Amino acid sequence: MKLGRISREGIDGPEARLVAVLPEQGRVVDLRAAERLRLIGRHASPEAAARLAAATFPGSMASAIGAGPIFLEMATEALARCGDDASLELEGLTWLPAVDPPVVRDCMAFKEHLSNAAARLGHEVHPTAYELPAYYKASQSSLIGHEAVVPWPPYTSWMDYELELGFVIGRSGRNLMPEQAAAHLFGVTIYNDFSARDIQGREMQLNLGPAKGKDFATAVGPWVTTLDELDLTDLDMRARVNGEEWSRGNAGSIWWSPAELIAYLSWGENLQPGDLIGSGTVGRGCGLELGRRLQPGDVIELEVSGIGVLRNRLAHPEAGGWQPTPRSR
Amino acid sequence: MKLGRISREGIDGPEARLVAVLPEQGRVVDLRAAERLRLIGRHASPEAAARLAAATFPGSMASAIGAGPIFLEMATEALARCGDDASLELEGLTWLPAVDPPVVRDCMAFKEHLSNAAARLGHEVHPTAYELPAYYKASQSSLIGHEAVVPWPPYTSWMDYELELGFVIGRSGRNLMPEQAAAHLFGVTIYNDFSARDIQGREMQLNLGPAKGKDFATAVGPWVTTLDELDLTDLDMRARVNGEEWSRGNAGSIWWSPAELIAYLSWGENLQPGDLIGSGTVGRGCGLELGRRLQPGDVIELEVSGIGVLRNRLAHPEAGGWQPTPRSR
Repeated sequence: MKLGRISREGIDGPEARLVAVLPEQGRVVDLRAAERLRLIGRHASPEAAARLAAATFPGSMASAIGAGPIFLEMATEALARCGDDASLELEGLTWLPAVDPPVVRDCMAFKEHLSNAAARLGHEVHPTAYELPAYYKASQSSLIGHEAVVPWPPYTSWMDYELELGFVIGRSGRNLMPEQAAAHLFGVTIYNDFSARDIQGREMQLNLGPAKGKDFATAVGPWVTTLDELDLTDLDMRARVNGEEWSRGNAGSIWWSPAELIAYLSWGENLQPGDLIGSGTVGRGCGLELGRRLQPGDVIELEVSGIGVLRNRLAHPEAGGWQPTPRSR
Repeated sequence: MKLGRISREGIDGPEARLVAVLPEQGRVVDLRAAERLRLIGRHASPEAAARLAAATFPGSMASAIGAGPIFLEMATEALARCGDDASLELEGLTWLPAVDPPVVRDCMAFKEHLSNAAARLGHEVHPTAYELPAYYKASQSSLIGHEAVVPWPPYTSWMDYELELGFVIGRSGRNLMPEQAAAHLFGVTIYNDFSARDIQGREMQLNLGPAKGKDFATAVGPWVTTLDELDLTDLDMRARVNGEEWSRGNAGSIWWSPAELIAYLSWGENLQPGDLIGSGTVGRGCGLELGRRLQPGDVIELEVSGIGVLRNRLAHPEAGGWQPTPRSR
């Protein structure tokens, strides 16, 4: 199943709604609406049907996933019984980030990206990279969905994309082994880790990792494809800028497998339903590796087979804000 | 006002409740309970009183702060009218992290910590540290409250504390100047950035900042003191381990002021109500700077004048989980 989040205009303003996506039919099904109609068809009162449908299909993907296997069972049931009344045309929707994760971690699990980036920056891959899968935490407040415009923050003139997979956690877990970890994966989405390379390079000199260089925007979507529809060892991954293919890779080239990443991340801490894990950039999956830069107005499309296309357009640079005044020595 | 979060046992399991803390009386007031009683006293039906009180005082501090100035006004009103029925003894409560932030950022705003840590690690403070306030993002899933036991993850034998202030954001903002930013600060709490120094050192070689070295636990509490009760330029800060004073500093020695940190963090991104900003460690505010290490079972108390004492005991090391198998070259 393909599950996404859209924004619909309600009486009191925008409402987040979960949708099942049927790309071949060019339609999505609003799951809460479908469930409400199904329950009315089974003699629930309109009030009870609305209440139950809202509990099963909240606006939060993480909360919905938190219900466990019941979530997909109910979505399947709602889909099977729904007529056109609960469906919407796929085109022209307002997409939210496909998941609203408790925690977002972004890894560096493709070796070729490491080697290429190291070569560009004039050093070797660090020996520790062979020993553990490093990651940093991203900002939930800056997640954006498919077709959202990407803000261009005031402090950068060097914008880049990163072509990544997004692994969505299905249930909580701690101290998992890789052979257990695979069962904790709910599905996969596409993750564009937009990067302001100039400030990122400067702040990373201070050894706390990327911050302003990433926190302005991370695109997640267009939706999540559940694991049963995917072969994680063979997903074609491409990036296009204004229609021109810049990057091409395959999920099968990953160095630390999704199950290994999940196991490592669960070591001594609790993973939560809906947690999002970026794979890191596939080899040659960003402008830095190619010696190319993005421009205001560029349209970036990331395509992954079995999922779809995540498309975002870059805004023109924003003005304002506080340029730090240097401290005296 | 001092505002915290506790867990109370309800019919369907534990419930998070907001409390106003009255340390001199040795009591806290459950704000939802106080508000419910106040409304009943004003002829609301019990059902309506419960519904309105739950909306004003949800279990989430971030959601409550999101209501704007009304939150503190209502808390003041509920407190003024409450009798003993809504109050609880301060001792023996189960404390939750004082805030449940959308995003947690931890800065490095005290210069002396930078100089001391650099000296310990045998290098100079990097010139870029004079130009911008670096930060990394912490994990919301690992926040713990006052008196909570700190898990000792399987992968470390070098445990440390960090004595920090936690700045809590009161309202959303973007591209703020420092002179505007101060009005976006709601209050201050105490922030213990527990650190597994061995794995932290290894993973930071990979340039993505701290991850497993911090993500097992961050203590936040005991409560938030609102800004009107504090002079941010003069807060005495101390750390005790098993009753012995290890660290002592003052908030006035900060290099990047709270207003400057808030301004910088809002540059090109949206700060949210309830966001939590760690100040970074005050000078000599951690074992790394002192050449000392924590042991299982140690009790760490961080005390800040005008706020209180944040006390946590270290667990014994946890076993299990997946030690990554090194990749071949």
